[in-house]
Amino acid sequence: MQRYFVSPDQMTDSTVTIRGDDVKHIAKVMRMTTGDEVICSNNHDRVAKCEIIDFDDSRVELSVIEWLDRHTELPIPVTIAQGLPKSDKLEMIVQKGTELGANVFLPFQASRSIVKWDAKKSKKKTERLQKIIKEAAEQSHRNRMPVCEEPITFNELISQSNTYTIKVVAYEEDAKQSESAKLAELFQQIDPNKDRLLVVVGPEGGLTPEEVDELKKAGFVTCGLGPRILRTETAPLYVLAAVSYQLELLR
Amino acid sequence: MQRYFVSPDQMTDSTVTIRGDDVKHIAKVMRMTTGDEVICSNNHDRVAKCEIIDFDDSRVELSVIEWLDRHTELPIPVTIAQGLPKSDKLEMIVQKGTELGANVFLPFQASRSIVKWDAKKSKKKTERLQKIIKEAAEQSHRNRMPVCEEPITFNELISQSNTYTIKVVAYEEDAKQSESAKLAELFQQIDPNKDRLLVVVGPEGGLTPEEVDELKKAGFVTCGLGPRILRTETAPLYVLAAVSYQLELLR
Repeated sequence: MQRYFVSPDQMTDSTVTIRGDDVKHIAKVMRMTTGDEVICSNNHDRVAKCEIIDFDDSRVELSVIEWLDRHTELPIPVTIAQGLPKSDKLEMIVQKGTELGANVFLPFQASRSIVKWDAKKSKKKTERLQKIIKEAAEQSHRNRMPVCEEPITFNELISQSNTYTIKVVAYEEDAKQSESAKLAELFQQIDPNKDRLLVVVGPEGGLTPEEVDELKKAGFVTCGLGPRILRTETAPLYVLAAVSYQLELLR
Repeated sequence: MQRYFVSPDQMTDSTVTIRGDDVKHIAKVMRMTTGDEVICSNNHDRVAKCEIIDFDDSRVELSVIEWLDRHTELPIPVTIAQGLPKSDKLEMIVQKGTELGANVFLPFQASRSIVKWDAKKSKKKTERLQKIIKEAAEQSHRNRMPVCEEPITFNELISQSNTYTIKVVAYEEDAKQSESAKLAELFQQIDPNKDRLLVVVGPEGGLTPEEVDELKKAGFVTCGLGPRILRTETAPLYVLAAVSYQLELLR
Protein backbone atom coordinates (compact mmCIF):
# COMPACT_ATOMS: atom_id res chain seq x y z
CA MET A 1 0.00 0.00 0.00
CA GLN A 2 1.26 3.47 -0.93
CA ARG A 3 2.72 5.50 1.97
CA TYR A 4 2.80 9.26 2.52
CA PHE A 5 4.41 11.47 5.13
CA VAL A 6 2.47 14.42 6.56
CA SER A 7 3.43 16.92 9.24
CA PRO A 8 1.94 16.26 12.71
CA ASP A 9 -0.55 19.17 12.33
CA GLN A 10 -2.03 17.48 9.24
CA MET A 11 -3.06 14.45 11.34
CA THR A 12 -5.84 14.41 13.96
CA ASP A 13 -7.19 11.45 15.93
CA SER A 14 -9.51 10.57 13.07
CA THR A 15 -8.44 12.44 9.93
CA VAL A 16 -5.45 13.23 7.73
CA THR A 17 -5.02 16.02 5.19
CA ILE A 18 -2.42 15.62 2.44
CA ARG A 19 -1.16 18.72 0.61
CA GLY A 20 1.61 19.61 -1.83
CA ASP A 21 3.20 17.32 -4.44
CA ASP A 22 1.63 14.22 -2.93
CA VAL A 23 -1.84 15.39 -4.01
CA LYS A 24 -0.79 15.18 -7.64
CA HIS A 25 0.94 11.85 -6.96
CA ILE A 26 -2.25 10.38 -5.49
CA ALA A 27 -4.62 11.70 -8.16
CA LYS A 28 -2.50 11.66 -11.33
CA VAL A 29 0.28 9.11 -10.82
CA MET A 30 -1.49 6.51 -8.67
CA ARG A 31 -4.92 7.44 -10.14
CA MET A 32 -6.54 6.87 -6.76
CA THR A 33 -9.94 8.19 -5.84
CA THR A 34 -12.39 8.27 -2.90
CA GLY A 35 -12.59 4.90 -1.18
CA ASP A 36 -8.96 3.99 -1.97
CA GLU A 37 -6.62 3.32 0.94
CA VAL A 38 -3.13 4.59 1.73
CA ILE A 39 -0.84 4.60 4.75
CA CYS A 40 0.01 7.95 6.36
CA SER A 41 2.79 8.69 8.83
CA ASN A 42 3.06 11.92 10.82
CA ASN A 43 6.84 11.52 10.52
CA HIS A 44 7.11 11.13 14.26
CA ASP A 45 5.15 8.54 16.21
CA ARG A 46 1.84 7.79 14.48
CA VAL A 47 1.12 5.70 11.40
CA ALA A 48 -2.40 4.98 10.15
CA LYS A 49 -4.17 3.13 7.39
CA CYS A 50 -6.48 5.77 5.86
CA GLU A 51 -9.27 5.97 3.31
CA ILE A 52 -9.61 8.83 0.84
CA ILE A 53 -12.92 10.60 1.51
CA ASP A 54 -12.56 13.77 -0.54
CA PHE A 55 -10.03 15.55 -2.76
CA ASP A 56 -9.47 18.49 -5.07
CA ASP A 57 -6.40 19.94 -6.83
CA SER A 58 -4.80 21.21 -3.65
CA ARG A 59 -5.58 18.65 -0.95
CA VAL A 60 -6.70 15.09 -0.20
CA GLU A 61 -8.88 14.44 2.87
CA LEU A 62 -8.64 11.02 4.48
CA SER A 63 -10.26 9.31 7.42
CA VAL A 64 -8.25 7.06 9.71
CA ILE A 65 -9.34 3.41 9.44
CA GLU A 66 -6.77 1.87 11.75
CA TRP A 67 -3.71 2.97 13.71
CA LEU A 68 -0.67 0.83 12.94
CA ASP A 69 2.03 0.14 15.46
CA ARG A 70 4.67 -1.54 13.36
CA HIS A 71 8.10 -0.30 14.36
CA THR A 72 10.39 0.17 11.40
CA GLU A 73 12.93 2.57 12.94
CA LEU A 74 16.35 1.41 14.13
CA PRO A 75 16.41 1.07 17.95
CA ILE A 76 18.82 4.04 18.18
CA PRO A 77 19.10 7.18 16.03
CA VAL A 78 22.07 6.98 13.65
CA THR A 79 23.63 9.98 11.92
CA ILE A 80 25.89 9.41 8.91
CA ALA A 81 28.47 12.21 8.61
CA GLN A 82 29.80 11.76 5.11
CA GLY A 83 32.88 13.49 3.68
CA LEU A 84 31.53 15.07 0.47
CA PRO A 85 32.06 12.48 -2.26
CA LYS A 86 32.22 12.94 -6.01
CA SER A 87 29.39 12.91 -8.54
CA ASP A 88 26.10 11.26 -7.60
CA LYS A 89 27.45 9.05 -4.82
CA LEU A 90 25.63 11.04 -2.16
CA GLU A 91 22.34 10.24 -3.88
CA MET A 92 23.10 6.55 -3.60
CA ILE A 93 24.17 6.94 0.04
CA VAL A 94 20.99 8.75 1.14
CA GLN A 95 18.74 6.36 -0.78
CA LYS A 96 20.32 3.15 0.52
CA GLY A 97 21.01 4.71 3.93
CA THR A 98 17.31 5.54 4.28
CA GLU A 99 16.34 1.96 3.45
CA LEU A 100 18.84 0.76 6.04
CA GLY A 101 17.46 3.03 8.78
CA ALA A 102 19.66 6.14 9.05
CA ASN A 103 18.14 9.11 10.84
CA VAL A 104 20.24 12.07 9.69
CA PHE A 105 22.71 12.58 6.84
CA LEU A 106 25.34 15.20 7.56
CA PRO A 107 27.66 15.83 4.60
CA PHE A 108 30.85 17.65 5.51
CA GLN A 109 33.67 19.28 3.61
CA ALA A 110 36.68 17.04 4.24
CA SER A 111 40.26 18.00 3.36
CA ARG A 112 40.29 15.49 0.54
CA SER A 113 36.77 16.23 -0.73
CA ILE A 114 37.27 17.15 -4.37
CA VAL A 115 33.88 18.74 -4.90
CA LYS A 116 32.84 21.95 -3.20
CA TRP A 117 29.23 23.04 -2.94
CA ASP A 118 28.57 26.78 -3.06
CA ALA A 119 25.64 28.15 -1.05
CA LYS A 120 23.20 28.24 -3.96
CA LYS A 121 24.10 24.81 -5.32
CA SER A 122 24.04 23.47 -1.79
CA LYS A 123 20.39 24.36 -1.15
CA LYS A 124 19.20 22.96 -4.46
CA LYS A 125 21.23 19.76 -4.15
CA THR A 126 20.06 19.18 -0.59
CA GLU A 127 16.44 19.56 -1.71
CA ARG A 128 17.03 16.95 -4.38
CA LEU A 129 18.62 14.60 -1.81
CA GLN A 130 15.66 15.17 0.52
CA LYS A 131 13.29 14.17 -2.28
CA ILE A 132 15.25 10.93 -2.83
CA ILE A 133 15.06 10.31 0.93
CA LYS A 134 11.30 10.83 0.98
CA GLU A 135 10.75 8.31 -1.80
CA ALA A 136 13.09 5.79 -0.18
CA ALA A 137 11.41 6.27 3.22
CA GLU A 138 7.98 5.61 1.72
CA GLN A 139 9.19 2.61 -0.26
CA SER A 140 11.01 1.04 2.69
CA HIS A 141 8.07 1.60 5.10
CA ARG A 142 9.94 3.96 7.39
CA ASN A 143 7.84 5.62 10.11
CA ARG A 144 10.05 8.69 10.06
CA MET A 145 11.63 10.47 7.15
CA PRO A 146 15.38 10.98 7.60
CA VAL A 147 16.81 14.46 7.18
CA CYS A 148 19.70 15.51 4.94
CA GLU A 149 21.47 18.62 6.23
CA GLU A 150 23.35 21.06 4.03
CA PRO A 151 27.12 20.41 4.06
CA ILE A 152 29.01 21.69 7.09
CA THR A 153 32.69 22.28 7.76
CA PHE A 154 34.93 19.83 9.58
CA ASN A 155 35.01 22.13 12.61
CA GLU A 156 31.22 22.27 12.69
CA LEU A 157 31.19 18.49 12.58
CA ILE A 158 33.47 18.31 15.60
CA SER A 159 31.30 20.77 17.50
CA GLN A 160 28.02 19.04 16.59
CA SER A 161 29.46 15.68 17.67
CA ASN A 162 28.99 16.70 21.31
CA THR A 163 25.37 15.65 21.25
CA TYR A 164 26.18 12.00 20.47
CA THR A 165 27.02 9.26 22.97
CA ILE A 166 28.77 6.89 20.55
CA LYS A 167 31.14 8.35 17.97
CA VAL A 168 32.74 6.15 15.36
CA VAL A 169 35.11 6.80 12.45
CA ALA A 170 35.24 4.22 9.66
CA TYR A 171 38.98 4.10 9.15
CA GLU A 172 40.58 2.10 6.38
CA GLU A 173 44.01 2.07 8.03
CA ASP A 174 42.38 -0.01 10.76
CA ALA A 175 41.01 -2.33 8.07
CA LYS A 176 44.49 -2.73 6.60
CA GLN A 177 45.87 -3.62 10.02
CA SER A 178 43.05 -6.12 10.46
CA GLU A 179 41.58 -4.28 13.43
CA SER A 180 38.31 -6.08 13.64
CA ALA A 181 36.70 -5.99 17.03
CA LYS A 182 36.18 -2.38 18.10
CA LEU A 183 32.97 -1.74 16.17
CA ALA A 184 31.39 -4.92 17.51
CA GLU A 185 32.55 -4.11 21.05
CA LEU A 186 30.91 -0.69 20.87
CA PHE A 187 27.72 -1.98 19.28
CA GLN A 188 27.30 -4.73 21.87
CA GLN A 189 27.27 -2.08 24.60
CA ILE A 190 24.62 0.13 22.97
CA ASP A 191 21.77 1.15 25.26
CA PRO A 192 18.73 1.87 23.04
CA ASN A 193 17.21 4.01 25.79
CA LYS A 194 19.90 6.63 25.74
CA ASP A 195 22.47 6.18 23.01
CA ARG A 196 22.81 8.22 19.83
CA LEU A 197 25.30 7.07 17.21
CA LEU A 198 27.40 9.30 14.95
CA VAL A 199 29.37 7.61 12.16
CA VAL A 200 32.02 9.57 10.25
CA VAL A 201 33.06 8.32 6.80
CA GLY A 202 35.81 10.01 4.79
CA PRO A 203 35.53 11.03 1.11
CA GLU A 204 37.20 9.08 -1.74
CA GLY A 205 40.78 9.70 -0.65
CA GLY A 206 39.94 9.01 2.98
CA LEU A 207 40.36 11.31 5.97
CA THR A 208 43.76 12.94 6.55
CA PRO A 209 45.80 11.81 9.60
CA GLU A 210 45.18 15.32 11.04
CA GLU A 211 41.40 14.91 10.70
CA VAL A 212 41.56 11.50 12.36
CA ASP A 213 43.58 12.98 15.24
CA GLU A 214 41.04 15.78 15.69
CA LEU A 215 38.20 13.27 15.73
CA LYS A 216 39.99 11.10 18.29
CA LYS A 217 40.51 14.15 20.51
CA ALA A 218 36.76 14.78 20.25
CA GLY A 219 36.02 11.29 21.56
CA PHE A 220 35.68 9.33 18.32
CA VAL A 221 36.79 5.70 18.10
CA THR A 222 38.44 4.57 14.83
CA CYS A 223 37.00 1.26 13.60
CA GLY A 224 37.73 -1.14 10.77
CA LEU A 225 34.78 -2.59 8.87
CA GLY A 226 36.29 -5.97 8.12
CA PRO A 227 39.59 -6.56 6.30
CA ARG A 228 38.48 -5.36 2.86
CA ILE A 229 38.82 -1.74 1.77
CA LEU A 230 35.33 -0.34 1.21
CA ARG A 231 34.57 2.57 -1.09
CA THR A 232 33.32 5.74 0.60
CA GLU A 233 29.72 5.03 -0.41
CA THR A 234 29.81 1.42 0.81
CA ALA A 235 31.14 2.08 4.32
CA PRO A 236 27.97 3.80 5.70
CA LEU A 237 25.82 0.96 4.33
CA TYR A 238 28.00 -1.59 6.11
CA VAL A 239 27.69 0.28 9.42
CA LEU A 240 23.91 0.64 9.14
CA ALA A 241 23.48 -3.05 8.30
CA ALA A 242 25.70 -3.90 11.28
CA VAL A 243 23.57 -1.73 13.62
CA SER A 244 20.44 -3.47 12.36
CA TYR A 245 22.00 -6.93 12.67
CA GLN A 246 23.26 -6.27 16.20
CA LEU A 247 20.16 -4.52 17.58
CA GLU A 248 17.28 -5.92 15.52
CA LEU A 249 18.38 -9.45 14.60
CA LEU A 250 20.76 -10.60 17.34
CA ARG A 251 18.91 -8.72 20.14
CA MET B 1 49.69 0.06 -3.99
CA GLN B 2 48.10 -1.11 -7.26
CA ARG B 3 46.89 -4.73 -7.26
CA TYR B 4 46.63 -7.20 -10.16
CA PHE B 5 45.21 -10.70 -10.45
CA VAL B 6 47.10 -13.31 -12.43
CA SER B 7 46.33 -16.98 -13.01
CA PRO B 8 48.29 -19.45 -10.85
CA ASP B 9 50.50 -20.50 -13.80
CA GLN B 10 51.70 -16.89 -14.16
CA MET B 11 53.20 -16.96 -10.65
CA THR B 12 56.29 -18.97 -9.60
CA ASP B 13 58.07 -18.96 -6.25
CA SER B 14 60.06 -15.90 -7.27
CA THR B 15 58.47 -14.33 -10.37
CA VAL B 16 55.17 -13.11 -11.79
CA THR B 17 54.24 -12.49 -15.43
CA ILE B 18 51.35 -10.15 -16.21
CA ARG B 19 49.67 -10.35 -19.64
CA GLY B 20 46.55 -8.97 -21.31
CA ASP B 21 44.81 -5.67 -20.55
CA ASP B 22 46.76 -5.17 -17.33
CA VAL B 23 49.98 -4.62 -19.31
CA LYS B 24 48.48 -1.52 -20.90
CA HIS B 25 47.10 -0.45 -17.52
CA ILE B 26 50.53 -0.68 -15.90
CA ALA B 27 52.45 1.06 -18.72
CA LYS B 28 49.95 3.58 -20.08
CA VAL B 29 47.44 4.32 -17.31
CA MET B 30 49.64 4.02 -14.22
CA ARG B 31 52.79 5.00 -16.19
CA MET B 32 54.86 2.59 -14.15
CA THR B 33 58.26 1.33 -15.20
CA THR B 34 61.05 -1.00 -14.03
CA GLY B 35 61.68 -0.64 -10.31
CA ASP B 36 58.03 0.24 -9.50
CA GLU B 37 56.15 -2.02 -7.13
CA VAL B 38 52.68 -3.61 -7.35
CA ILE B 39 50.82 -6.34 -5.50
CA CYS B 40 49.96 -9.51 -7.38
CA SER B 41 47.47 -12.20 -6.36
CA ASN B 42 47.23 -15.61 -8.02
CA ASN B 43 43.48 -15.44 -7.36
CA HIS B 44 43.73 -18.42 -5.06
CA ASP B 45 46.08 -18.52 -2.10
CA ARG B 46 49.18 -16.43 -2.79
CA VAL B 47 49.64 -12.66 -2.72
CA ALA B 48 53.01 -10.98 -3.21
CA LYS B 49 54.55 -7.54 -3.31
CA CYS B 50 56.45 -7.48 -6.60
CA GLU B 51 58.90 -5.24 -8.46
CA ILE B 52 58.73 -4.65 -12.20
CA ILE B 53 61.96 -5.92 -13.74
CA ASP B 54 61.14 -5.89 -17.46
CA PHE B 55 58.24 -5.17 -19.79
CA ASP B 56 57.19 -4.82 -23.41
CA ASP B 57 53.85 -4.33 -25.18
CA SER B 58 52.56 -7.81 -24.40
CA ARG B 59 53.84 -8.67 -20.92
CA VAL B 60 55.29 -7.33 -17.67
CA GLU B 61 57.87 -9.40 -15.78
CA LEU B 62 58.08 -8.95 -12.03
CA SER B 63 60.17 -10.42 -9.25
CA VAL B 64 58.63 -11.29 -5.90
CA ILE B 65 59.90 -9.03 -3.10
CA GLU B 66 57.76 -10.35 -0.28
CA TRP B 67 54.90 -12.83 0.21
CA LEU B 68 51.94 -11.26 1.97
CA ASP B 69 49.62 -13.20 4.20
CA ARG B 70 46.86 -10.73 4.87
CA HIS B 71 43.50 -12.46 4.78
CA THR B 72 40.82 -10.37 3.10
CA GLU B 73 38.34 -13.11 2.22
CA LEU B 74 35.18 -13.73 4.25
CA PRO B 75 35.60 -16.76 6.53
CA ILE B 76 33.05 -18.71 4.45
CA PRO B 77 32.29 -18.60 0.74
CA VAL B 78 29.07 -16.69 0.01
CA THR B 79 27.10 -16.96 -3.22
CA ILE B 80 24.53 -14.28 -4.04
CA ALA B 81 21.74 -15.70 -6.23
CA GLN B 82 20.01 -12.60 -7.53
CA GLY B 83 16.68 -12.53 -9.36
CA LEU B 84 17.50 -10.59 -12.54
CA PRO B 85 16.82 -6.94 -11.73
CA LYS B 86 16.18 -4.03 -14.06
CA SER B 87 18.66 -1.68 -15.70
CA ASP B 88 22.14 -1.37 -14.25
CA LYS B 89 21.31 -2.64 -10.76
CA LEU B 90 23.30 -5.82 -11.27
CA GLU B 91 26.41 -3.71 -11.92
CA MET B 92 25.94 -2.03 -8.57
CA ILE B 93 25.30 -5.38 -6.85
CA VAL B 94 28.46 -7.05 -8.19
CA GLN B 95 30.61 -4.00 -7.47
CA LYS B 96 29.44 -3.49 -3.88
CA GLY B 97 29.06 -7.23 -3.32
CA THR B 98 32.70 -7.72 -4.30
CA GLU B 99 33.82 -5.04 -1.85
CA LEU B 100 31.75 -6.76 0.84
CA GLY B 101 33.31 -10.16 0.20
CA ALA B 102 30.93 -12.22 -1.99
CA ASN B 103 32.46 -15.21 -3.73
CA VAL B 104 30.03 -15.97 -6.57
CA PHE B 105 27.20 -14.01 -8.19
CA LEU B 106 24.50 -16.20 -9.68
CA PRO B 107 21.81 -14.20 -11.49
CA PHE B 108 18.63 -16.17 -12.14
CA GLN B 109 15.49 -15.64 -14.17
CA ALA B 110 12.75 -15.17 -11.58
CA SER B 111 9.03 -15.19 -12.40
CA ARG B 112 8.83 -11.48 -11.77
CA SER B 113 12.09 -10.55 -13.51
CA ILE B 114 11.08 -8.01 -16.13
CA VAL B 115 14.28 -8.21 -18.16
CA LYS B 116 15.29 -11.28 -20.09
CA TRP B 117 18.83 -11.84 -21.33
CA ASP B 118 19.19 -13.72 -24.60
CA ALA B 119 22.24 -15.94 -25.09
CA LYS B 120 24.27 -13.37 -27.01
CA LYS B 121 23.47 -10.46 -24.70
CA SER B 122 24.07 -12.70 -21.72
CA LYS B 123 27.69 -13.48 -22.60
CA LYS B 124 28.56 -9.84 -23.31
CA LYS B 125 26.82 -8.52 -20.21
CA THR B 126 28.45 -11.12 -17.99
CA GLU B 127 31.86 -10.17 -19.36
CA ARG B 128 31.13 -6.55 -18.48
CA LEU B 129 30.05 -7.54 -14.95
CA GLN B 130 33.23 -9.61 -14.58
CA LYS B 131 35.29 -6.56 -15.51
CA ILE B 132 33.51 -4.49 -12.83
CA ILE B 133 34.20 -7.30 -10.35
CA LYS B 134 37.90 -7.37 -11.23
CA GLU B 135 38.26 -3.63 -10.64
CA ALA B 136 36.34 -3.80 -7.37
CA ALA B 137 38.37 -6.81 -6.20
CA GLU B 138 41.63 -4.97 -6.86
CA GLN B 139 40.41 -1.78 -5.23
CA SER B 140 39.07 -3.54 -2.12
CA HIS B 141 42.24 -5.67 -1.70
CA ARG B 142 40.52 -8.99 -2.23
CA ASN B 143 42.83 -12.01 -2.48
CA ARG B 144 40.43 -13.77 -4.80
CA MET B 145 38.36 -12.40 -7.63
CA PRO B 146 34.66 -13.31 -7.36
CA VAL B 147 32.96 -14.91 -10.34
CA CYS B 148 29.75 -13.77 -12.02
CA GLU B 149 27.94 -16.65 -13.74
CA GLU B 150 25.63 -16.23 -16.72
CA PRO B 151 21.95 -16.17 -15.70
CA ILE B 152 20.38 -19.55 -14.94
CA THR B 153 16.76 -20.67 -14.64
CA PHE B 154 14.96 -21.04 -11.33
CA ASN B 155 15.09 -24.84 -11.68
CA GLU B 156 18.84 -24.72 -12.22
CA LEU B 157 19.13 -22.60 -9.10
CA ILE B 158 17.24 -25.21 -7.07
CA SER B 159 19.45 -27.96 -8.41
CA GLN B 160 22.71 -26.04 -7.84
CA SER B 161 21.65 -25.23 -4.26
CA ASN B 162 22.50 -28.84 -3.26
CA THR B 163 26.16 -27.97 -2.87
CA TYR B 164 25.51 -25.41 -0.11
CA THR B 165 25.17 -26.12 3.62
CA ILE B 166 23.29 -22.93 4.56
CA LYS B 167 20.54 -21.69 2.25
CA VAL B 168 18.78 -18.44 2.94
CA VAL B 169 16.02 -16.49 1.16
CA ALA B 170 15.72 -12.78 1.87
CA TYR B 171 11.96 -12.53 2.16
CA GLU B 172 10.18 -9.24 2.60
CA GLU B 173 7.00 -10.86 3.92
CA ASP B 174 9.10 -11.92 6.91
CA ALA B 175 10.28 -8.32 7.27
CA LYS B 176 6.67 -7.12 7.28
CA GLN B 177 5.82 -9.63 9.98
CA SER B 178 8.82 -8.44 11.97
CA GLU B 179 10.52 -11.83 11.84
CA SER B 180 13.91 -10.83 13.02
CA ALA B 181 15.90 -13.61 14.52
CA LYS B 182 16.29 -16.40 11.99
CA LEU B 183 19.19 -14.91 10.03
CA ALA B 184 21.15 -14.22 13.22
CA GLU B 185 20.37 -17.70 14.55
CA LEU B 186 21.74 -19.28 11.37
CA PHE B 187 24.79 -17.03 11.21
CA GLN B 188 25.71 -17.70 14.84
CA GLN B 189 25.91 -21.41 14.04
CA ILE B 190 28.17 -21.07 11.00
CA ASP B 191 31.21 -23.33 11.00
CA PRO B 192 33.89 -21.64 8.85
CA ASN B 193 35.60 -24.98 8.30
CA LYS B 194 32.76 -26.52 6.39
CA ASP B 195 29.89 -24.16 5.67
CA ARG B 196 29.02 -22.61 2.32
CA LEU B 197 26.29 -19.96 2.22
CA LEU B 198 23.80 -19.40 -0.60
CA VAL B 199 21.62 -16.29 -0.40
CA VAL B 200 18.62 -15.91 -2.72
CA VAL B 201 17.24 -12.41 -3.35
CA GLY B 202 14.15 -11.80 -5.49
CA PRO B 203 13.90 -9.24 -8.32
CA GLU B 204 12.04 -5.92 -7.96
CA GLY B 205 8.57 -7.41 -7.47
CA GLY B 206 9.92 -10.04 -5.09
CA LEU B 207 9.71 -13.81 -5.38
CA THR B 208 6.31 -15.41 -6.03
CA PRO B 209 4.75 -17.52 -3.24
CA GLU B 210 5.29 -20.56 -5.51
CA GLU B 211 9.01 -19.79 -5.81
CA VAL B 212 9.30 -19.38 -2.04
CA ASP B 213 7.55 -22.73 -1.53
CA GLU B 214 9.94 -24.44 -3.96
CA LEU B 215 12.92 -22.93 -2.18
CA LYS B 216 11.61 -24.05 1.21
CA LYS B 217 11.18 -27.57 -0.12
CA ALA B 218 14.81 -27.45 -1.25
CA GLY B 219 15.94 -26.61 2.28
CA PHE B 220 16.02 -22.83 2.18
CA VAL B 221 15.13 -20.76 5.26
CA THR B 222 13.18 -17.53 4.70
CA CYS B 223 14.67 -14.62 6.66
CA GLY B 224 13.77 -11.00 7.28
CA LEU B 225 16.56 -8.41 7.14
CA GLY B 226 15.19 -6.07 9.78
CA PRO B 227 11.73 -4.45 9.72
CA ARG B 228 12.33 -2.12 6.79
CA ILE B 229 11.62 -3.17 3.20
CA LEU B 230 14.90 -3.23 1.28
CA ARG B 231 15.17 -2.79 -2.46
CA THR B 232 16.38 -5.83 -4.39
CA GLU B 233 19.88 -4.36 -4.80
CA THR B 234 20.19 -3.46 -1.09
CA ALA B 235 19.27 -6.86 0.36
CA PRO B 236 22.45 -8.71 -0.75
CA LEU B 237 24.62 -5.91 0.64
CA TYR B 238 22.85 -6.17 4.01
CA VAL B 239 23.44 -9.94 4.13
CA LEU B 240 27.12 -9.64 3.20
CA ALA B 241 27.70 -6.92 5.81
CA ALA B 242 25.93 -9.12 8.38
CA VAL B 243 28.17 -12.11 7.52
CA SER B 244 31.23 -9.90 7.93
CA TYR B 245 29.97 -8.41 11.20
CA GLN B 246 29.13 -11.83 12.66
CA LEU B 247 32.24 -13.72 11.52
CA GLU B 248 34.93 -11.04 11.27
CA LEU B 249 33.97 -8.45 13.88
CA LEU B 250 32.05 -10.31 16.59
CA ARG B 251 34.11 -13.53 16.24
